[in-house]
Amino acid sequence: MNPVACLRLPASAATPPSPSRCRAASQPPRSVSRLPPRASSSTAAYTTKVYRNANIAKLQAGYLFPEIARRRAAHLLKHPDAKIISLGIGDTTEPIPEVITNAMAERAHALSTVDGYSGYGAEQGEKKLREAIAATYYGDHGIEETDIFVSDGAKCDISRLQVLFGSNVKIAVQDPSYPAYVDSSVIMGQTGLYQQDVQKYGNIEYMRCSPENGFFPDLSSVPQTDIIFFCSPNNPTGAAASRDQLTQLVKFAKDNGSIIVYDSAYAMYISDDSPKSIFEIPGAKEVAIETGSFSKYAGFTGVRLGWTVVPKELLFSDGHPVAKDFNRIVCTSFNGASTLSQAGGLGCLSPEGLKAMQDVVGFYKENTDIIVDTFTSLGFNVYGAKNAPYVWVHFPGRNSWDVFAEILEKAHVVTTPGSGFGPGGEGFVRISAFGHRENIIEAARRLKQLYK
Amino acid sequence: MNPVACLRLPASAATPPSPSRCRAASQPPRSVSRLPPRASSSTAAYTTKVYRNANIAKLQAGYLFPEIARRRAAHLLKHPDAKIISLGIGDTTEPIPEVITNAMAERAHALSTVDGYSGYGAEQGEKKLREAIAATYYGDHGIEETDIFVSDGAKCDISRLQVLFGSNVKIAVQDPSYPAYVDSSVIMGQTGLYQQDVQKYGNIEYMRCSPENGFFPDLSSVPQTDIIFFCSPNNPTGAAASRDQLTQLVKFAKDNGSIIVYDSAYAMYISDDSPKSIFEIPGAKEVAIETGSFSKYAGFTGVRLGWTVVPKELLFSDGHPVAKDFNRIVCTSFNGASTLSQAGGLGCLSPEGLKAMQDVVGFYKENTDIIVDTFTSLGFNVYGAKNAPYVWVHFPGRNSWDVFAEILEKAHVVTTPGSGFGPGGEGFVRISAFGHRENIIEAARRLKQLYK
Repeated sequence: MNPVACLRLPASAATPPSPSRCRAASQPPRSVSRLPPRASSSTAAYTTKVYRNANIAKLQAGYLFPEIARRRAAHLLKHPDAKIISLGIGDTTEPIPEVITNAMAERAHALSTVDGYSGYGAEQGEKKLREAIAATYYGDHGIEETDIFVSDGAKCDISRLQVLFGSNVKIAVQDPSYPAYVDSSVIMGQTGLYQQDVQKYGNIEYMRCSPENGFFPDLSSVPQTDIIFFCSPNNPTGAAASRDQLTQLVKFAKDNGSIIVYDSAYAMYISDDSPKSIFEIPGAKEVAIETGSFSKYAGFTGVRLGWTVVPKELLFSDGHPVAKDFNRIVCTSFNGASTLSQAGGLGCLSPEGLKAMQDVVGFYKENTDIIVDTFTSLGFNVYGAKNAPYVWVHFPGRNSWDVFAEILEKAHVVTTPGSGFGPGGEGFVRISAFGHRENIIEAARRLKQLYK
Repeated sequence: MNPVACLRLPASAATPPSPSRCRAASQPPRSVSRLPPRASSSTAAYTTKVYRNANIAKLQAGYLFPEIARRRAAHLLKHPDAKIISLGIGDTTEPIPEVITNAMAERAHALSTVDGYSGYGAEQGEKKLREAIAATYYGDHGIEETDIFVSDGAKCDISRLQVLFGSNVKIAVQDPSYPAYVDSSVIMGQTGLYQQDVQKYGNIEYMRCSPENGFFPDLSSVPQTDIIFFCSPNNPTGAAASRDQLTQLVKFAKDNGSIIVYDSAYAMYISDDSPKSIFEIPGAKEVAIETGSFSKYAGFTGVRLGWTVVPKELLFSDGHPVAKDFNRIVCTSFNGASTLSQAGGLGCLSPEGLKAMQDVVGFYKENTDIIVDTFTSLGFNVYGAKNAPYVWVHFPGRNSWDVFAEILEKAHVVTTPGSGFGPGGEGFVRISAFGHRENIIEAARRLKQLYK
């Protein structure tokens, strides 16, 4: 127990620590908590003697998406009649196909019967579902049922993976990337302080992905790290890595002895021949973990169902299988995904369910086309989109949050500022293709009005 | 990154570290993984350069309940015709009342409609459910909707709370206690190595709870710790702390500046006037967090729904509200409980649902009486049971795992060995009252046969 929160000030702090600075440093600048402000922080409220976790104190601002939700709510307060269209957080909007919800409802009713009731399931997920995931997504890649850990979503698994790795590892992330990789790393104590001048945390390797390098990092200039988080198709840039690029990545990991955590949550959006799994690359099973999710295929963002593949071939430096320790984390810190969600997952992976998910994906991809056409017709450079439900729009020289505010203020459309995904996202805005068709068309109309 | 796994050997290791010892020390003695054994661990399989997390390497054996499942499976292999009765893991067996499953099925069907579809919910849970939990369980205690964080279960929340506290805290636990407190503490790096001679981890305070002290620790001999995990009614002893005892506990925490994590997962089983929440004790909001669960009331062990109360009055030493940081953990590492489970929670807390849950609890309490009568008639001293679904049976002078094996071998009944809950559980066996009535009666018959 040790008051490091008070000893480590941001590098930008020029004055020596004092009690009042110390207190300020340990509080996030803009809270996203929904708690009412404390009435009497200046009076002598009782405090425990437990030190605030210094790692959490390093986090700079609210987690990106709750922060956007907060700004959206503030906009609505100011403009109560505004018909806000949300193309921000990446939340699915279309109804879940009935073949899937029927499976969940049926399981719910069965739980009221003696024969259909089930209590605790296996922490790793139902055998049938693990088998179906292995067969559907990894049939040709040598991944077996026992390599699959069913979960309540990829985001949750990312944090469990960080607990698995512990605080003594260094990670690399694509820059820009999904903020949960960096934030969970900070929370686990793997990083240094946030460096305001470069907008990066110490001890994280940010692998720049930009139009100049085709959104694939220049690996020759990336130093060795223990863990490499890699998302393809990428959130937020929408870029899918090619087979050649992923072959380079696997070789890079192998040369360095690193573990890749490959986030394939958008794999079903791939239209070209880019790999849908890292395990399509020979040798990947010895260097990679892969997370997947039903969220963006079946509209399961609220239902919560995903999975993580930890191949038995993946070994720590001492030869101990990574899967054995991940199994221990899953058994200690998790109790399995809801049995209802798992029934839904089985519905998703039935022949009819797979067809229905492809239709859902196809619908959002049509939305993507509308958004791309809109910005292209306005003369913007847009990226991504082809293999992902995200359009990555370039506003060269402009501040992302300013563009976010401009579009919200003038078009009542919520987007996501690129810099929320890392310094490499500055000057970009991510437009999500998740929306009802009429909203996408209306948003396109307003954006054309705004930027004509 | 630092190979501490190879530097810290158990205190019992007399010889100096060598590569081969080091490898052995980092492997758990008896794996609970379902992975097939690696074919060629002696040949030169590729290993990454990532060090195994030294904290996970400290864990001594499989997490208790998967270990019991493993032994049960082994017994079934040996006796394929045995009609095994499971009174071990504490898994619910009775169908979920229809008022609750109907609510879940209805929500599932609604997700297939444009109006009823919803995507990401608030990470903290649906407002209506948070309100219902606050009103139902904390109506008179000043706990508000915004103090409630809905989750996928108390076990999952315990690990999220450990991430919140970080590695620089020292915890205290009741001994015996639910193993997730200790194991999650080890994983987070809060502890020293396991000390085989006393069967305790270093840097954890084990508060002995035995028949001699009425299963309430002698606080005058407990040193100060940052965090105190306290479960009442207790799992496994079944003891519920009285109002006087909890008043002592709150005073003890306040005097020491500690935070109590109060696990109230069995509160609805309380038959006497013991408090059902720590927040019944004046001043508790400044020193306590409480976890709750629908698992044992509504049979939600597989549905997954619980909650954690973090009062806004609870402050770290620097005055920062604990709830703000927990909110940040929940937003970064979790995405809310399944919307279907939450619909079920609302069903549980409807007037009809509450009545139905009380009936379920009443049914299991009748089972408890049968088990108590069985062991009492055989001359055993039994504890717990009155306010909990667990009977804590004393086998003085005997090894818990031996008794477990004897009952499994000779009566085909699965129990839980007391020592699995800590050294203070040695000599006891926990019998769970979760079971179909005919199985409870049959188990009672076999036990009478075995111990007559």
